[in-house]
Amino acid sequence: MENIIINEVGPRDGLQNINKVLSVDERLTLIRALEETGIEHIEIGSFVSDKAVPAMTNTGGLINKLDNIDNYSVLIPNKKGLDEAKIHRVKEICTVLCVTDSMNQKNINQTVDETLNDLKLILGDSSKNGIRTKCYVSVAFHCPYEGKVDSTYVEAVVGQLLDYKVDEVVVADTIGAAHPKEVSALMTSLSSTYKDAIFSCHFHDTRALGLANVYSSLEAGIKKFDSCIGGLGGCPFAPNSSGNLATEDLVGMLELMNITTGINLDKLLVAREVASKLTNLTLKGRMY
Amino acid sequence: MENIIINEVGPRDGLQNINKVLSVDERLTLIRALEETGIEHIEIGSFVSDKAVPAMTNTGGLINKLDNIDNYSVLIPNKKGLDEAKIHRVKEICTVLCVTDSMNQKNINQTVDETLNDLKLILGDSSKNGIRTKCYVSVAFHCPYEGKVDSTYVEAVVGQLLDYKVDEVVVADTIGAAHPKEVSALMTSLSSTYKDAIFSCHFHDTRALGLANVYSSLEAGIKKFDSCIGGLGGCPFAPNSSGNLATEDLVGMLELMNITTGINLDKLLVAREVASKLTNLTLKGRMY
Repeated sequence: MENIIINEVGPRDGLQNINKVLSVDERLTLIRALEETGIEHIEIGSFVSDKAVPAMTNTGGLINKLDNIDNYSVLIPNKKGLDEAKIHRVKEICTVLCVTDSMNQKNINQTVDETLNDLKLILGDSSKNGIRTKCYVSVAFHCPYEGKVDSTYVEAVVGQLLDYKVDEVVVADTIGAAHPKEVSALMTSLSSTYKDAIFSCHFHDTRALGLANVYSSLEAGIKKFDSCIGGLGGCPFAPNSSGNLATEDLVGMLELMNITTGINLDKLLVAREVASKLTNLTLKGRMY
Repeated sequence: MENIIINEVGPRDGLQNINKVLSVDERLTLIRALEETGIEHIEIGSFVSDKAVPAMTNTGGLINKLDNIDNYSVLIPNKKGLDEAKIHRVKEICTVLCVTDSMNQKNINQTVDETLNDLKLILGDSSKNGIRTKCYVSVAFHCPYEGKVDSTYVEAVVGQLLDYKVDEVVVADTIGAAHPKEVSALMTSLSSTYKDAIFSCHFHDTRALGLANVYSSLEAGIKKFDSCIGGLGGCPFAPNSSGNLATEDLVGMLELMNITTGINLDKLLVAREVASKLTNLTLKGRMY
C-alpha cells in the first residue's frame, strides 16, 4: 500500500488553454468540486498578464474567496508574479522553464540561460519569504521545434535549479511525445544523480501514453504526479499538445494497483461533470 | 531495434461487437485497407452460428475472396467451426476459453473443464491437419462476475492448454481492468514457468490502461500483441468492456520506442478512416 500525491492542475493548466474564459466564481465552483474529492494539492491559477492569459484574470480575487490555500500552488512567470503571490500569502509557487531555447523563446521570449538567471532570483526570494517553490522543466523529453531533447543537458539544467534551492522539480512531457522507456531512463537517472531532490512528473495523453508513462515513473520511484480533471487543456504554444492526463484515469489506475491517493473516484466523476458544464466541453479521459 | 508482431483483430473482434452488420464485401474492404498498412497478421472472422453472431455470417465467402490467408486466423468456437476452417483451408485458428466458470457459462454455456475437454480434441485435430492453433485465455486478470482471478489457477489452465499442444496462448484482459503491475507479474511468471511457450497479449483500453499494459508486457519479454483498428469492439457478454486497444495507438508507441512492426502509421490512419466510414462510428484511439 503505497501513497501517491496527485497535484490537480485543471484550474490553471486546464482552464488557461480552452476557448471559454470562466469567471472567478466559476473557477471557484470548479475548485470547490475538486476539494470535495479529497484532492489536497491543486494548482489554482496564475499571476500572469490578463491580456496574455485572460482565463487567469483576477487570481488574487479567487484566492481571497478560498478558506485555506496551504496546499495550493499558483504559477508565476516572473518577479512581478511573485510580488502578487506574496501579497496574497501564497504558500507555494510554480515557475516554468522550457528546457529548449526554441520553446522557451516561444513561451516567454527568453533563452534558457536568461530564464535560469531570473529563476535564481525568484527562487531565492521565495525561499527567503517562506514560499515553497516548484519549477516545471517543460519539453523535458521532446520539443516540437528541436525534437528529442538530450537527457544529459536536462540533468544539467535540473542541477542548476537545485543549486538555486528549488523545492521540487516537475519534469514535464509538454507535448505528450515521450514513451515509457525514456521516461523511466530519465527519471531513474535524475533520482540517482540528485538523491535528495523531490521530483514529480507531468504527462499529457496526446498519444494515449499518459498512464504508461506514469507507470514507468512509478517503477522509477516517482511519488507525485500532475493531472487534470477530464483531461482539460494543453499548451497554446506547442502544436497538438492538447490533452493533459485525466485525473480520473490516473486515480483509476492507482486504485486498481492498491495505491492510495486520498481521492474519491466517484466524487472525481462529479467534479468532471462540473468541469464539463462550466467549460461547455466534451472532456477526455476514459474512466467515466 | 526490436521487432514486435501486431495481430489486428478488427475484422473479427471489432466488427462482431458493433450494432451495424457489414456485408462480406465491406469486411473485405476493411481487410484490404489493413493489408495496405503492412500488417501481416489479421484475425479475419469466425466460424460461428450466423444467428448468434450475424456480423460474422459467411466468413467462408470472405475467405474465398482473399488471395493469401497464410498469416490470417479465424476464430472457431467448437468442432463444427473447425470443420468449416478445414474446408476453407484456414492456416491458423483461434479458440477461446474464459478462465472463470461464470464468464465461460455466459459466453458458451460450459464450465471451464467442459471447454478444456473440447479444446483437447479441437487442438489435437487441428495439429494433425497442420493448422496452427491459438487459444485466448479470456478474463485472465479480472472477471466481471468473479472479480480478481487467481494467477496460480490461470497458470494451471495455461499448462493444460500447452499439454494439449496449443501453439500460442493469448492472455486477454477482456474487460480492460488489469493494471500494469499485475500484467507484468503474470506474464513474467508464465514466461518463466513455460519457457518454450509462445505468449501474446490482448488488452482493452476501457480504463486508458492499454498501452501501460503493453509496456509492462514488453518489459516482461512479450513480443506479440493483439490490437484493433480505431479501438473498435469489445465483448457483448462483459459489461463495459468496450474499447479494444487501438492499433494506431500501439504502433505509435512502438515507433516512438524505435521498435519496428512493419506497419505504416499513415496508412493505418487511412485504414482507420475506412473502418469509421464502413461502421458509421466515431472511433476511439488517440493517435490520429
